[in-house]
Amino acid sequence: MCPARAGARRGDVATEDQLSAAPNRRPGRRPGNPDTRDAVLAAARAAFAERGFDGATIRGIAADAGVDPALVHHYFGSKDQLFLAAIEAPANPADLLPEVLAAGRDELGAAVVRLLLKVWDGPMRPAGLALVRSAVGNEWTAKLLREFLVTQVLRRVVATLEIPAAEREARGALVASQLIGIVMARYVLRVEPLASASPQWLVAAIGPNVQRYLTGDLELP
Amino acid sequence: MCPARAGARRGDVATEDQLSAAPNRRPGRRPGNPDTRDAVLAAARAAFAERGFDGATIRGIAADAGVDPALVHHYFGSKDQLFLAAIEAPANPADLLPEVLAAGRDELGAAVVRLLLKVWDGPMRPAGLALVRSAVGNEWTAKLLREFLVTQVLRRVVATLEIPAAEREARGALVASQLIGIVMARYVLRVEPLASASPQWLVAAIGPNVQRYLTGDLELP
Repeated sequence: MCPARAGARRGDVATEDQLSAAPNRRPGRRPGNPDTRDAVLAAARAAFAERGFDGATIRGIAADAGVDPALVHHYFGSKDQLFLAAIEAPANPADLLPEVLAAGRDELGAAVVRLLLKVWDGPMRPAGLALVRSAVGNEWTAKLLREFLVTQVLRRVVATLEIPAAEREARGALVASQLIGIVMARYVLRVEPLASASPQWLVAAIGPNVQRYLTGDLELP
Repeated sequence: MCPARAGARRGDVATEDQLSAAPNRRPGRRPGNPDTRDAVLAAARAAFAERGFDGATIRGIAADAGVDPALVHHYFGSKDQLFLAAIEAPANPADLLPEVLAAGRDELGAAVVRLLLKVWDGPMRPAGLALVRSAVGNEWTAKLLREFLVTQVLRRVVATLEIPAAEREARGALVASQLIGIVMARYVLRVEPLASASPQWLVAAIGPNVQRYLTGDLELP
């Protein structure tokens, strides 16, 4: 059964009156009617998993949830923000990546590893682990985590390199393989000495490998 | 509750008579009384998870299972073989690794990636995925998978390099981070183009990174 349709109630399309009566979004406060919100999030998860981030649209998600697209924008903001809410992302890469992208081209690999460790060594780790656990056990969540990594993280990192799209995709996927591997080895399997090594050591040991994936000589697949 | 003790029946210590009456081990045939076998495997899983591969002993596992150590040897062979049976390993690295280790020192990184892809692109993938899924959801299985990777795979690979033990451990753990990352990106999350790339391309793209972890300049943590 499609979870989006399970959560949708087609008779409950929001009117412009309801929309203007919706509370303003404030930080730390979840806006709107919880049932409508949940219906939109369920529809969003289904759409992003089935059609990918690029293929899903706010208009389609709103239709699946039985609400007006303007209400979805009003509750969640952009498609990026709706996606992050749908997968319960522990952090918004758009807030964190600028410090990575400010690094010079030759420092990008080290900067990516440093950011990964900062996020995972901090309070976001439990939510991150929950997401990885869910993705490994469930094909649907695996697709969502892949879309998150590719569209929210890697695409932004490789966009700073002036290279063709196909090459960006291949380099981004290789970087993904090393980053997911750090998460698995350090935080899930706890392989020593990676599990207790300092971030500084890990950045020095792994940064150059990520750098090669970003800017080193590579043929396209 | 400790699974080892749950499976153990202390009144059921095997006698030498029972031992000599046990059927000979034949390939493809599971030897011995299924209940005794299961008790030994449960005791082995508990011991390897709690004390690690190096800390666990056949004698201790036999005592936990309430059987004679000779019976454990008779049923399972060596500690390595008991461990592989306990975690239901889809392959025995001791059978597969010689072709990797025959590669020259400068080809070791590519050879390791090539073997990983050969195993995971073949019929062992479902069992491998089951092991990874279980390890991610369960701390106990995570410890067992870590022990498998470190003691059965990485230790054998880095043993071919003439370097001090601490350095071998660090290099092996870094290699683990990249290998687990390939499994996650290609087979679990199915990140493109990694998911559909040829093994040849993956070996050329990733082999040099694994090689750097094995023989490149690295400080110790």
